[in-house]
Amino acid sequence: MCRRGTLIGIGVGPGDTELLTLKAAKLLEEIQVICSPKSSKDKESIALSIVDPIIREREDYDELTILEPLFPMIENKKKLEKYWDDASQAIADYLNKGIDVAFITLGDPSIFSTFSYVQKRLKDNYTVKVIPGITSFTACASACDIPLVEKNQVLTVVPKIDDRLEDIMSYSDSIVLMKTSRNPEELEKLIESKNKEKIIYSVENCTRDEEKVIEGFSKDKPYLTTTLVKFID
Amino acid sequence: MCRRGTLIGIGVGPGDTELLTLKAAKLLEEIQVICSPKSSKDKESIALSIVDPIIREREDYDELTILEPLFPMIENKKKLEKYWDDASQAIADYLNKGIDVAFITLGDPSIFSTFSYVQKRLKDNYTVKVIPGITSFTACASACDIPLVEKNQVLTVVPKIDDRLEDIMSYSDSIVLMKTSRNPEELEKLIESKNKEKIIYSVENCTRDEEKVIEGFSKDKPYLTTTLVKFID
Repeated sequence: MCRRGTLIGIGVGPGDTELLTLKAAKLLEEIQVICSPKSSKDKESIALSIVDPIIREREDYDELTILEPLFPMIENKKKLEKYWDDASQAIADYLNKGIDVAFITLGDPSIFSTFSYVQKRLKDNYTVKVIPGITSFTACASACDIPLVEKNQVLTVVPKIDDRLEDIMSYSDSIVLMKTSRNPEELEKLIESKNKEKIIYSVENCTRDEEKVIEGFSKDKPYLTTTLVKFID
Repeated sequence: MCRRGTLIGIGVGPGDTELLTLKAAKLLEEIQVICSPKSSKDKESIALSIVDPIIREREDYDELTILEPLFPMIENKKKLEKYWDDASQAIADYLNKGIDVAFITLGDPSIFSTFSYVQKRLKDNYTVKVIPGITSFTACASACDIPLVEKNQVLTVVPKIDDRLEDIMSYSDSIVLMKTSRNPEELEKLIESKNKEKIIYSVENCTRDEEKVIEGFSKDKPYLTTTLVKFID
């Protein structure tokens, strides 16, 4: 029986190709199959656009296989699982032939990443490796030129605004709100209600060409907006 | 008057040189002055050892200036501020001559980094840029082959174990404990007291040659130990 291929989850960072790690870039110069899920058939995959300048330089670019399974943004869990099952099966087909597959994902593969769905399905039967990436929130702090946390401060990363936010505000010195564009008014009201001095920055499309750093909350709704809230003692 | 130099904070990641970003590596191949604080005169700077394979390749290696200001691990705030003032002044001396300075720091410059002390002192008078780095906790999750957070889970990053931990446990799905080796017994007792199914991993010297992944808590005390706690619903 031939050797099974390895699945490698690669964090490609927030947007700037230069924020790929040396390790990720090296691997993307050699790998034969790249899997890059997309949320809709008509949209370009952001992760793929980030690695594009690296893979375009390859002499064997035309022979590269790029899998683009659909991971739609729907709520129906059963339907979603079918999409993840299908994508995992498509990857497994290559692994079974002894071919390695790189699964690229925005930011870091361990933080709110679609990679976790295929990782869970394949890790028991295949070798899975992960190359960490720059998370959006540290890139946003860099763009705002502020430290996120210092000394004994507590940092909380929140993917969605729900009723836990009030408790979180009472113990956190800094809060990162991912994809805040989903419900900015509700968020703004909750944060402002906290009677403590604070600095607030929102970053749209961090490290991408269209990057925009805003003091306070974002009124636009680009998909990639992160808000940093820092309470001052 | 000549142009003032730029201060660039560079996150060099958790330990493996290959986890430097392309942007950081490129800059380290060109910059003339590198500042790398160390905690004691006798100890090697870990950040410097990470970038060493990059800068050693430089043809002009012998002409490179490496500043190694002392940032001791002491509690006396007044004494500490004097160390940070002195380091900032040493950096400013170069910036005033129009020479750029790269300040290298383990992990990411915005997460519990000594960079924040010089950043604060110099940002009003000089241009300061930040290149984000791979944080230890995403590298640790990669080493453990587990997602840190998925879907609507809340992640909390805690630098020190204190009386907030119990409250933090009530709303967090995943907790990262940085430098847990400081007080492992206390930590273990607190986490175990939480009546919820959990998986716990500790990673010593993540991505370095001596990396060790432990299920549960670490009994050794290397300086660079991170513990990941994930509560299962």
